[in-house]
Amino acid sequence: MRRILLTIEYDGSCYSGWQKQPDRRTIQGEIEQALFRILGQKIEVFGSGRTDAGVHALNQKAHFDLDTPIPISKLASIINNQLPDDIVIKSAEEVANDFHARFSLTRKVYSYTIFNSQYKDAFLARRVGRIEYPLDEKKMAKAGKLLIGEHNFKGFASANTCTDNFVRTIYDLKVERDGDFIYVIVEGSGFLYNMVRIIVGTLVDYSLGNLTLDDIKSALKNQDRSKSGRTMVASGLYLKDAIY
Amino acid sequence: MRRILLTIEYDGSCYSGWQKQPDRRTIQGEIEQALFRILGQKIEVFGSGRTDAGVHALNQKAHFDLDTPIPISKLASIINNQLPDDIVIKSAEEVANDFHARFSLTRKVYSYTIFNSQYKDAFLARRVGRIEYPLDEKKMAKAGKLLIGEHNFKGFASANTCTDNFVRTIYDLKVERDGDFIYVIVEGSGFLYNMVRIIVGTLVDYSLGNLTLDDIKSALKNQDRSKSGRTMVASGLYLKDAIY
Repeated sequence: MRRILLTIEYDGSCYSGWQKQPDRRTIQGEIEQALFRILGQKIEVFGSGRTDAGVHALNQKAHFDLDTPIPISKLASIINNQLPDDIVIKSAEEVANDFHARFSLTRKVYSYTIFNSQYKDAFLARRVGRIEYPLDEKKMAKAGKLLIGEHNFKGFASANTCTDNFVRTIYDLKVERDGDFIYVIVEGSGFLYNMVRIIVGTLVDYSLGNLTLDDIKSALKNQDRSKSGRTMVASGLYLKDAIY
Repeated sequence: MRRILLTIEYDGSCYSGWQKQPDRRTIQGEIEQALFRILGQKIEVFGSGRTDAGVHALNQKAHFDLDTPIPISKLASIINNQLPDDIVIKSAEEVANDFHARFSLTRKVYSYTIFNSQYKDAFLARRVGRIEYPLDEKKMAKAGKLLIGEHNFKGFASANTCTDNFVRTIYDLKVERDGDFIYVIVEGSGFLYNMVRIIVGTLVDYSLGNLTLDDIKSALKNQDRSKSGRTMVASGLYLKDAIY
């Protein structure tokens, strides 16, 4: 029995997220179906974490156990042949038997793409979150600095987050502009439900003058969701890396 | 009563095509629902023609009749506010009462994007048709020249095309390469079911050595579908313009 780690790229536009659900197309469901067609047996694939409907991944990680003698070097292309083209196995490698895609994780990196334009663009719609009013990326970066470090992020999580522990560490938060596009890149120990989308929404609302730096400090200190910003749409969010 | 002509851009990735269908998301269905929310009445929208599931449009055209005094200059943005972001009304203009988006049409232009690469790319998947073996765009253009003019295109239509008249005129056919992308742009009097996708597949199969120029001539002369090429996937096809 070999434990295999997959690195996966996907366009989440037309999927109901990572996690398998009955009667819905999901990334995990598609990969498990592909493995079933190849191996003739039901295999459970464990992801580094879920991504929501419409969220994309550049390097999602997932593991599964393989008990047939397929050469690892051919595995990615064999699986890709059974997958829809908007899900791509970028690599497959053998890892230790106690490795776990979720529990062995040390850091995660997300990138959020804002399309900062007054114009709608049908072909960007499922790849970005659009903000029509001009944003100041320097102001956004300034607000982002407040969030770096270990904090209780309950004020930056969706109300229906199922956890007791809201403490996470943000190691880095960058804001970069390229023309009409603003990229917010956040690296952390882990993220609560909707946390990246609310962090980006908070930087946006600060830039637009809807929030002050004191509001953001208060959202952190008092775990007050009413002092953080909007939840950005899922379509702009990319799981950039899961680090072990 | 004013007749309104819409110019519409859409990413067809997550839609079951143009034409409304029960329990399916379609472009026509979304636009009619948007108009219903704005006007409080059922309005039928007539497109220049259908596009299949997954096919995109840069400038689809459609008309409808409006009997409320909304200023035309504001109509596009009013409708856009009620549409999902992957469907965009680019403009709305008043036309004569005898204008018809389908029957007044004189020409249509389609563009097909081939991603000519041995590598899969999840984010291109729903925007292109991928061919992994190297294509020669000059050979493709040479084969394309055979198709220009008035011909019976039954050999380049899907078997389940519902029409008695297979005669169409192709006014122009261009093949352009930009790096790994090849664009086939076809302008014609109209197109049969799957005709553009089969034309592009024929140029591809000629370039790959699966067909000869004589095969293509025979497909035209004898209306022989077995002598034309593969049907390319829907995702690479863009309705570029409908001309009146």
